[in-house]
Amino acid sequence: MSGIVVQNIARADLAVIDGLALCGVATVHEAQGRKGLLASYMRPIYSGTRIGGSAVTISAPPGDNWMVHVAIEQLQAGDVLVLAPTSPCEDGYFGDLLATSAMARGCRGLVIDAGVRDVLDLTQMQFPVWSKAVFAQGTVKNTLGSVNVPVVCAGAAIEPGDVIVADDDGVCVVRRDDAQMVLDAARTRETNEADKREKLASGVLGLDMYNMRERLEREGLRYI
Amino acid sequence: MSGIVVQNIARADLAVIDGLALCGVATVHEAQGRKGLLASYMRPIYSGTRIGGSAVTISAPPGDNWMVHVAIEQLQAGDVLVLAPTSPCEDGYFGDLLATSAMARGCRGLVIDAGVRDVLDLTQMQFPVWSKAVFAQGTVKNTLGSVNVPVVCAGAAIEPGDVIVADDDGVCVVRRDDAQMVLDAARTRETNEADKREKLASGVLGLDMYNMRERLEREGLRYI
Amino acid sequence: MSGIVVQNIARADLAVIDGLALCGVATVHEAQGRKGLLASYMRPIYSGTRIGGSAVTISAPPGDNWMVHVAIEQLQAGDVLVLAPTSPCEDGYFGDLLATSAMARGCRGLVIDAGVRDVLDLTQMQFPVWSKAVFAQGTVKNTLGSVNVPVVCAGAAIEPGDVIVADDDGVCVVRRDDAQMVLDAARTRETNEADKREKLASGVLGLDMYNMRERLEREGLRYI
Amino acid sequence: MSGIVVQNIARADLAVIDGLALCGVATVHEAQGRKGLLASYMRPIYSGTRIGGSAVTISAPPGDNWMVHVAIEQLQAGDVLVLAPTSPCEDGYFGDLLATSAMARGCRGLVIDAGVRDVLDLTQMQFPVWSKAVFAQGTVKNTLGSVNVPVVCAGAAIEPGDVIVADDDGVCVVRRDDAQMVLDAARTRETNEADKREKLASGVLGLDMYNMRERLEREGLRYI
Amino acid sequence: MSGIVVQNIARADLAVIDGLALCGVATVHEAQGRKGLLASYMRPIYSGTRIGGSAVTISAPPGDNWMVHVAIEQLQAGDVLVLAPTSPCEDGYFGDLLATSAMARGCRGLVIDAGVRDVLDLTQMQFPVWSKAVFAQGTVKNTLGSVNVPVVCAGAAIEPGDVIVADDDGVCVVRRDDAQMVLDAARTRETNEADKREKLASGVLGLDMYNMRERLEREGLRYI
Amino acid sequence: MSGIVVQNIARADLAVIDGLALCGVATVHEAQGRKGLLASYMRPIYSGTRIGGSAVTISAPPGDNWMVHVAIEQLQAGDVLVLAPTSPCEDGYFGDLLATSAMARGCRGLVIDAGVRDVLDLTQMQFPVWSKAVFAQGTVKNTLGSVNVPVVCAGAAIEPGDVIVADDDGVCVVRRDDAQMVLDAARTRETNEADKREKLASGVLGLDMYNMRERLEREGLRYI
Repeated sequence: MSGIVVQNIARADLAVIDGLALCGVATVHEAQGRKGLLASYMRPIYSGTRIGGSAVTISAPPGDNWMVHVAIEQLQAGDVLVLAPTSPCEDGYFGDLLATSAMARGCRGLVIDAGVRDVLDLTQMQFPVWSKAVFAQGTVKNTLGSVNVPVVCAGAAIEPGDVIVADDDGVCVVRRDDAQMVLDAARTRETNEADKREKLASGVLGLDMYNMRERLEREGLRYI
Repeated sequence: MSGIVVQNIARADLAVIDGLALCGVATVHEAQGRKGLLASYMRPIYSGTRIGGSAVTISAPPGDNWMVHVAIEQLQAGDVLVLAPTSPCEDGYFGDLLATSAMARGCRGLVIDAGVRDVLDLTQMQFPVWSKAVFAQGTVKNTLGSVNVPVVCAGAAIEPGDVIVADDDGVCVVRRDDAQMVLDAARTRETNEADKREKLASGVLGLDMYNMRERLEREGLRYI
Repeated sequence: MSGIVVQNIARADLAVIDGLALCGVATVHEAQGRKGLLASYMRPIYSGTRIGGSAVTISAPPGDNWMVHVAIEQLQAGDVLVLAPTSPCEDGYFGDLLATSAMARGCRGLVIDAGVRDVLDLTQMQFPVWSKAVFAQGTVKNTLGSVNVPVVCAGAAIEPGDVIVADDDGVCVVRRDDAQMVLDAARTRETNEADKREKLASGVLGLDMYNMRERLEREGLRYI
Repeated sequence: MSGIVVQNIARADLAVIDGLALCGVATVHEAQGRKGLLASYMRPIYSGTRIGGSAVTISAPPGDNWMVHVAIEQLQAGDVLVLAPTSPCEDGYFGDLLATSAMARGCRGLVIDAGVRDVLDLTQMQFPVWSKAVFAQGTVKNTLGSVNVPVVCAGAAIEPGDVIVADDDGVCVVRRDDAQMVLDAARTRETNEADKREKLASGVLGLDMYNMRERLEREGLRYI
Repeated sequence: MSGIVVQNIARADLAVIDGLALCGVATVHEAQGRKGLLASYMRPIYSGTRIGGSAVTISAPPGDNWMVHVAIEQLQAGDVLVLAPTSPCEDGYFGDLLATSAMARGCRGLVIDAGVRDVLDLTQMQFPVWSKAVFAQGTVKNTLGSVNVPVVCAGAAIEPGDVIVADDDGVCVVRRDDAQMVLDAARTRETNEADKREKLASGVLGLDMYNMRERLEREGLRYI
Repeated sequence: MSGIVVQNIARADLAVIDGLALCGVATVHEAQGRKGLLASYMRPIYSGTRIGGSAVTISAPPGDNWMVHVAIEQLQAGDVLVLAPTSPCEDGYFGDLLATSAMARGCRGLVIDAGVRDVLDLTQMQFPVWSKAVFAQGTVKNTLGSVNVPVVCAGAAIEPGDVIVADDDGVCVVRRDDAQMVLDAARTRETNEADKREKLASGVLGLDMYNMRERLEREGLRYI
């Protein structure tokens, strides 16, 4: 059932995607009811970046990056490549040449449940990657996979066209149809947080601000 | 046996704590006889920081940060929060709002055998954290734990009021009653090290400086 | 069979070693037929460095760095220390004093399948280390190991005098006798890559540049 | 978006499910095009068992097994419980009391991306479990999750009513709608395999039986 | 601060210890308020054994089992050896000769946060071991550690003379002074569990037996 | 440099190999100076087996078992297959069909730094395997590797024709040329051990039997 490339995928509105990126992973994750987070081993190759984009997904065999070349043709400006190997693999599927090609098509970054290489070059090019490993071990181009099929990447189910948000806290996926609703919820959270931050900075305790004392006492907390 | 908050804990002298922080983790660890080190997976969220402080400990259920709010009320200037979950957990118990509140009370940092989030904000606020993971997954506030009880954090037994030293090499705990003695030993080591460093930089070999050649020969070392 | 120090090891030509360092780990690894890479858990303590050198190898017992002192005497300018423990260990075998001594003899860095400490000092001294862990736990000096014997370090077999190349992508070993040949192949790759990079940046697809379309179709790739 | 129990889920035909169980995980996984396998860390608590069943899924908070009680009410004869925590957790969500209750409703086993306990009792009761860990650490009953919603369990996306096959090789999920088709393909494979096994046992080489020699030569294999 | 052997340690009453062993790890852990459990990676070398005993603790350097010989002299009938290395280590500190010696003194088993070897012999001798690893790599006898000092073993703080309970679910420590109280609580739990087991086996649901339905509804659980 | 099959490899004498197998991994490893052990994660799929054999080595790409078919033709009675993937991989390279074929040629077992499947069948056939994982995920047959070249398997360097010894304690490799010498040393150890075991069983302490007391005192051990 491999060997499929889905060409016309629906994407969320770019303004919504950019709004989600501005909110950041932690806020978006909370705003959609604490779901969609990729595993904590997915780390950025350099810090300080925050991106959003539409997922162009790749299901690839272990140690074989042939499908990455196929996927790049499917990229539109504002997309993010999402690669899930069909079995656990740390090989370096992606380096500076592929990044050059992806950037030429407007790709905003890569999320890969495997390895990446040429990380110094990628940092200098400012092409962000969230990966399971940094590993110089290259790959072959011998076996088909698929592009724009549903994948499970680092423990999260991702559909092509879903919104990917990634920053120093990790990576989160938002269902395409939920994007506007999640953005609204995220912005509401942000407004509330600014207010709370000010109070907490002034010395107000969370215990008071959130009215926790009574419930703590009811549950039996004892001060000694 | 959860649900306890110990309010008045003894702390070491701040001048002693600051002295230990200046010596750094590796020196302090050696100076107290190679004990008290937390596991190597405890890494700082940004590099270049060296702190010391008195431990305010938190024993928290997996995925529940209710007790962090309770612990913040117990903080004094010069304290460090130390959180140990009651079973292994990578959730992000702590983010920028809690850091704002902790900083308002003079807290110097967090040591957490679990996850942390909002790491870009925390870096910009210069609130240092040593953690097992960076993970945007938030927590609930449903189940009691305890504050200022003995905990095992990343393999080290920590009592409330013990001295925590943390830098790029990791985290070390010093028993409160040993703090002055360990500081003295650490400073002696530092003096010796400066002298040794100079000799080694000039080309003197450790083999000669430490008089190792005879013992190596006795043990049977052969040069071929 | 421990307790041996081999004193006169052959080394590759320094010009060749420096050439390999310039090419970097990913290119060198490809150029020699995808072999010689150390495991992906070997990470640099700071980023942005690229080194080459001749391996002076150390086989050391767990938690015992006595042989590091012995090995430093064997160093020549342009060498890289390579330490493999005889059983898995994360202890900090190496810190700023040993680095001072090694630098005094022209050592270019350390590759260690174990722990390192004093990483802030090492960063400031610009002494690069690729290690399995950062860990302040020190070691004893009680049990013999060997220097300049064949070792397996992080999954790669390394002979004394082999060429070590290390950068942000990891660490690769090149057999001493293959060094010139691998350098030639690596430079050829680099020339080709510059050309390819330009084409890809201009928007040419890898699918076309590498003539992949026909073979993909033959293998059964379907666009839907 | 937690706190949901879907009560009426569709299931595959029990005869088909039992047929898949007889084929075993490795054959079923091949027969459906190498997909649907859970991660290799999912191991049985005792060996020699082979089961099939319809997935009743549980999405549970870390360290909270409240939803297991809710899920048991939804069980029918021939079902398998599938539990995925919302963040990584090794706690023992399930022991002999819950197994007693589940068996009373005809449940055939448990697949849990977390911990299990009372494993000696479960073995004596012959209630099979595939888990990430064995861990006596119990759980609380404080926070809602959901029952019979889509989950990602050990890296595989599972819908309620999907067919679970599990044996000593691990766990595989088959989409409910594909069950009959996969069973047909699996049985075809089995017939072929019996034939091949006989030939190989008699000394015929795979190289000849699969006609590999010509293709190996074409790819450049050299015998020396 | 190494190099200490504490000779006269207090122990709990053997009848109480045996009572705790009969209850098993999961029940004892619950009965004492969900604390004292060692990490889930501590696994028995063979299944089906359930032991209790008084801890004779060993703090040992990595790869050095000298102190095991010292500890064996301190053993009394009914004791369990508990070994914690001073830094993470998987070496095989213990094999059939040491087990022979320990059994001659009435030792009931070994709990070791490191490796063990000769596991087939140990199984035939019926000397139970809970360990982090099985590893044939032996150790040296060159560096002092301590016997009967407080240790942290697999994440749990253990004092000499504390009660160790171990079975197929893992290992739990009970403070010596709490032993009788925990035994009473554990037995109460067991009585309750027998009753519950019968009800559940007859088809009564936990939802009803524990009166959960009202609280679930109040928390917002929706059936759809 | 892949794509090579070395056909005529030298092997050690079968009587010597069988002698080493009888001694077992722990004894052989000690007898050759504590080297040659594979990593502790290499575990047998069933317990109670002890084998020896000549290594027929396979270097295979991740997720591709084509070379296993090639290697089977090179097997002689008394050989052991040793597979090392060129990058980390847990796929199930080997199952009951390949085992049938290997057994038909007198193969004694498989050592694989990757995954294996059909483990229930392999257990019933009594074909022993030491592996990193059990995983039903199959492989393709698309990319060349090599047979009978030097490999690093689970951290140990193995040459074709080296002697493999494997049992419940793990796997050890003995250089072909050292086999007789190691066997002699191993048998001497065994004789000594029988004598020691008897003494220890009678209650003699290791402290006395090995004359450790004086050296312990000299090193500063204090009894308190």
